[in-house]
Amino acid sequence: MDGIEYIFRPKSVAMIGASPRKGTIGREILHNVIINEFNGKVFPVNPKYGVIHSIKCYSTILDVPDAVDLAIIAIPRDGVPDVAEKCGQKGVRGIVVISAGFKEVGGRGIELEDRLIEICRRYRMRMIGPNCFGVVNTDPDISLNCTFGKTGALPGRVGFISQSGALGEAIMNHAHQLGLGFSMVASIGNKADISANNILDFWKDDPRTEVILLYLENFGNPRNFTKIAREITRTKPIVAVKAGRTSQGAKAASSHTGALAELDVGVDALFDQCGVMRVSSVEELFDVASALANQPIPRGKRVAIVSNAGGPALLATDALVGMGMEVAPYTGETKRQLKRALSGQGTVNNPLDLVAGAGGKKFKAALKVVKEDKNYDSIMTIFVPPVTIDQLEVASSILEGVKDTDKMVLACFMGTEEGSDAVNFLKQNRIPVYQFPEAIAKTLYLIDSYRQWLERPLGKFRSFSVNRAAAQKILEGALETSEGAIIGEKALDVLAAYGIPVTKNEIVSSEKDAVSAAERIGFPVVLKVNTPVILHKTEIGGVKVDLRTPREVKTAFASLKKKITASKRGTARGREKFSVFVQEMVSGGIETVIGMTTDPSFGPLLMFGLGGIYVEILKDVSFGINPLNDNDADEMIKNLKSYPLLTGFRGTEPVDMPTLKESLLRLSQLVSDFDVISEVDINPFIACPKKGDSKAVDARFIVKKL
Amino acid sequence: MDGIEYIFRPKSVAMIGASPRKGTIGREILHNVIINEFNGKVFPVNPKYGVIHSIKCYSTILDVPDAVDLAIIAIPRDGVPDVAEKCGQKGVRGIVVISAGFKEVGGRGIELEDRLIEICRRYRMRMIGPNCFGVVNTDPDISLNCTFGKTGALPGRVGFISQSGALGEAIMNHAHQLGLGFSMVASIGNKADISANNILDFWKDDPRTEVILLYLENFGNPRNFTKIAREITRTKPIVAVKAGRTSQGAKAASSHTGALAELDVGVDALFDQCGVMRVSSVEELFDVASALANQPIPRGKRVAIVSNAGGPALLATDALVGMGMEVAPYTGETKRQLKRALSGQGTVNNPLDLVAGAGGKKFKAALKVVKEDKNYDSIMTIFVPPVTIDQLEVASSILEGVKDTDKMVLACFMGTEEGSDAVNFLKQNRIPVYQFPEAIAKTLYLIDSYRQWLERPLGKFRSFSVNRAAAQKILEGALETSEGAIIGEKALDVLAAYGIPVTKNEIVSSEKDAVSAAERIGFPVVLKVNTPVILHKTEIGGVKVDLRTPREVKTAFASLKKKITASKRGTARGREKFSVFVQEMVSGGIETVIGMTTDPSFGPLLMFGLGGIYVEILKDVSFGINPLNDNDADEMIKNLKSYPLLTGFRGTEPVDMPTLKESLLRLSQLVSDFDVISEVDINPFIACPKKGDSKAVDARFIVKKL
Repeated sequence: MDGIEYIFRPKSVAMIGASPRKGTIGREILHNVIINEFNGKVFPVNPKYGVIHSIKCYSTILDVPDAVDLAIIAIPRDGVPDVAEKCGQKGVRGIVVISAGFKEVGGRGIELEDRLIEICRRYRMRMIGPNCFGVVNTDPDISLNCTFGKTGALPGRVGFISQSGALGEAIMNHAHQLGLGFSMVASIGNKADISANNILDFWKDDPRTEVILLYLENFGNPRNFTKIAREITRTKPIVAVKAGRTSQGAKAASSHTGALAELDVGVDALFDQCGVMRVSSVEELFDVASALANQPIPRGKRVAIVSNAGGPALLATDALVGMGMEVAPYTGETKRQLKRALSGQGTVNNPLDLVAGAGGKKFKAALKVVKEDKNYDSIMTIFVPPVTIDQLEVASSILEGVKDTDKMVLACFMGTEEGSDAVNFLKQNRIPVYQFPEAIAKTLYLIDSYRQWLERPLGKFRSFSVNRAAAQKILEGALETSEGAIIGEKALDVLAAYGIPVTKNEIVSSEKDAVSAAERIGFPVVLKVNTPVILHKTEIGGVKVDLRTPREVKTAFASLKKKITASKRGTARGREKFSVFVQEMVSGGIETVIGMTTDPSFGPLLMFGLGGIYVEILKDVSFGINPLNDNDADEMIKNLKSYPLLTGFRGTEPVDMPTLKESLLRLSQLVSDFDVISEVDINPFIACPKKGDSKAVDARFIVKKL
Repeated sequence: MDGIEYIFRPKSVAMIGASPRKGTIGREILHNVIINEFNGKVFPVNPKYGVIHSIKCYSTILDVPDAVDLAIIAIPRDGVPDVAEKCGQKGVRGIVVISAGFKEVGGRGIELEDRLIEICRRYRMRMIGPNCFGVVNTDPDISLNCTFGKTGALPGRVGFISQSGALGEAIMNHAHQLGLGFSMVASIGNKADISANNILDFWKDDPRTEVILLYLENFGNPRNFTKIAREITRTKPIVAVKAGRTSQGAKAASSHTGALAELDVGVDALFDQCGVMRVSSVEELFDVASALANQPIPRGKRVAIVSNAGGPALLATDALVGMGMEVAPYTGETKRQLKRALSGQGTVNNPLDLVAGAGGKKFKAALKVVKEDKNYDSIMTIFVPPVTIDQLEVASSILEGVKDTDKMVLACFMGTEEGSDAVNFLKQNRIPVYQFPEAIAKTLYLIDSYRQWLERPLGKFRSFSVNRAAAQKILEGALETSEGAIIGEKALDVLAAYGIPVTKNEIVSSEKDAVSAAERIGFPVVLKVNTPVILHKTEIGGVKVDLRTPREVKTAFASLKKKITASKRGTARGREKFSVFVQEMVSGGIETVIGMTTDPSFGPLLMFGLGGIYVEILKDVSFGINPLNDNDADEMIKNLKSYPLLTGFRGTEPVDMPTLKESLLRLSQLVSDFDVISEVDINPFIACPKKGDSKAVDARFIVKKL
């Protein structure tokens, strides 16, 4: 048993800062430990009192006669380190520090938190907090609730990790209203020692925890998270809400890729690659959790709707179809059986409208038919209670109607308050009940994305044989210049060293050399001004394309030289000689952009998108966290809205997808090999139909000393 | 006073089908009329009883001694027409038919409903229903609630029209939980006589109705709705939920425009053009209504957030920024004052995090500063109640803090149940309270779209002088062929007749004529096979572009002829001679698509989008309901995601917007003038920078006999 296990499964608990005064945190926690009937010994510790709640109270933890597994600390922050020291001396295995005023307030708080960490390390004590709401374990063998919330936790299958202390009580309260039960709850606060990753790892093999909910405000170690989450989500769904999509604000980005990564695409990419369902609110977190904790995961997108009101059923259909789910009509045997079961029913559609007067009998009859139809993966029932119908009877009929089905069944009772008999009845029988049909639609959609993730093959990380030394030489060379940028030929050379196909190209500084270079490369060619200053070459007319003869090459060279000399922009760099980039012309393909930017917490993010307008205006790009496996690369390409352009559109041939995918994976290997690369734009990478034709035409690297 | 007014403001009411038996609709309605203390006379009518609820009961309405303004009918459907007939004889002015089983069930129900309508017409009685939930008027002079719901309506400023009877009670119940008050409620059921339009018209000048909510399942007369709604929304906001986005299913569409109009773009366009806020659920309907009924409309997008919890504030910011709202940092004097007011507060950001321990005092101090800052238009407060804080004190401090501000103030109390003292206190003081910050974000966003609509100049309908006769001749000609399609030259001629610029073009059937046509038109030209069968000309290679010399024209002509003769596709039509379309080549512009399709309920829908991939894959198009005014055309163009392409992108010149806009308006005039036009595709209309260069290059009309 390591420290974390002692925190969640202690045999004895000391409550340091225990108090008999109502409204104090020390009283609330002790009270919760006692009324939840903790299955072990509790020792209140507070020098001011001799007895609290009829239990003997000790002056310090050192006075406690028995061994103590877990100490809860809820005293003013300045005293916390001394108390923690005593816990260490006592041999306590884990502490939960409720007290706030540490790193989150800055200044002296940081010092105190550092001292706490040092004490824990010294005594090999594990710590949750500081600045947290406490922990809960509803396992009847333990039955520990050392939070200060007014609402208890119902026992259940959901593990919940919250980074916010403030939200702790609000969330427990909301879960209680919904009737959602927890296996364990951990408020991790400042994560000075134990992080969400540690707890995920601990819950991986906990048989009582079947679904995991996360409320996160930032990531400590995303790489660790990836490793653990990818493993867990294969067997236990993780649903997460992550605040702060826009908190970083726009950063000054020098690359396209960087500018496009403004929002927290890193989190989206991370969750996507790990199969974590991301929701955007606490409300959705619980909507999804209720479904996952009580019902099987549907095998597909096909939803059957049975309702006693047409309007809400249509709203549900709208919401489902709008998110890509399917609400296909009832057909064949099901249709015939429904007509028989619902004598007098005019039309039999999906959604099935039983009309307002429908009581439990009709719901039951319809559901018995629908649950047998293999064309549906989940069932949504909607009931809008007319005054004349007994709601509890409808609820119990719904339950009977769907008995033993392996489809996911979610119920909507519109206009019925939480806690009504009918709603409670269904919940107690593991059918989640929602107030609005749209919430069910969103829930089914999110769970379906998880199902799709489960069905993806396990990705493989590929390793290509590359010329690492060649790339290293160019990257190190760039680090020595003040610029830190690698452009033009050198940038393409780095890509070529990693096996990413690039155009043939030469740098020349005379007309004559330009022509002979063009002849070596093969016509048609492109001429580009070769200077680091002019980044958007096309805008100033520094690019001449489709040059088909030596004569055209000569004319183009002269024109470029004249233009640049006149504008002085090229010569402003002083000693640099005017030179031109002669390049093979790639045509007949689709312009794509492959890029990489560095996220402060996630490290390298790879990007893929179509070129030009798609990136600039429509921002149709996708991101992946490095390193990419082959599945990740696949998903990045397929996630584009403009993806159909790549697979052949209106008679055009599909592009060579393996080369595109491999180029992404090779770039991933490149940025993994060299931490100094902070940004990459391969723009354009022209994707062509024929193998061997796709090529990077222009590229740019930013390197930074670490 | 017309019939509608008698329904909502009766002096005497007959309750036909009144009953003393609990659980019956006749009992519930009578009960509601009485317990809501209707300010007039009530006459129960039922041959079975002599007295109900201590009130004398009459056998038939004809026995009632007094005049009766309004009769509520809640008896089995087969008896309804006879009873209605008696109401007519009695001189009743309006009836509300609660009974169901009419048109909505088909068969005999349709007959009965038709009879009802005939009776109402004959006696000039107005009717609400059948198949409805009843009506409510909370005006203390009237105080009428003749619904059968268990929950009463609180008096308030919101008028509510529901097309769904089944949803009636659910909605009343939900409103009651939220503390939202109504001026009037009308459940219009089958709309056999009185429609939503009639009631909107009636509420237009009702001083007690300040906000109007609609729950709709279909539109009776969209044109009337447009007229009334455009007028009302200038002074009273309308919020609507319309079910059935996807109910029509995909229809077989023969035009691009038709295929793209699959979803209910008509409703979106209608609401947009009328300034109606469309929400997608009943939940959102009430979220928005609570804000509008109690708070001023914000002057802009800028939101200040004051919270005692960082996480929910970030989630709110994410939601707001994601929808295009602004959460700009506090600056200058506000920042200084906040720092002073909140001594000990480390950082002062927007969202402002007062931290968990913050009580009412801090909220009040912060809000007093924020409410004075002219850089914000609305304020969101978020409170996550820690166990140690008195919630009611926080609520009253929030109220004091925002006193007399003209900003919209919306409060979030997370994890607090509806009906808690604190929540009730704020609601009673006209500060709406939400359980989740995302709901506030969505509400502010929807209301901001309404503000923007209010700020748009009033659109003007323009009338162009056109050659109507020329267009008519071609359209009538097409009606006589079995095809009903107009393509090629003739289609462009129709456009030209309405002043939409088109390319110069000629049809020729010999090489020689092709060359001379090209010389008249001016090189370069385009040659296209001229046959109605080959719709996607480019795919079969039936188009030759950029022909610069007579020689190129000749070669192209020969090649087209060979190809078509070989494929037999051109000759399959029998006697048709091979001919070619010689056309002016338009270059240097952006391909757009202008189109029109006919919606079964909305009539002509105009469409605008960028060409090619934008339409085909990204479906970046916008729709407007005919007729368009100049504002509508403006909005249609600006609503495209790819709009920046038209205004000049990366050094390209902006296109000639007035011509583009005018072409849309001229097409609107064309389809208004000719009902026979059922679909139009102008694809492409090339929009060029220089005035006079933009032109329709290809077009296609479908005409249908009416």
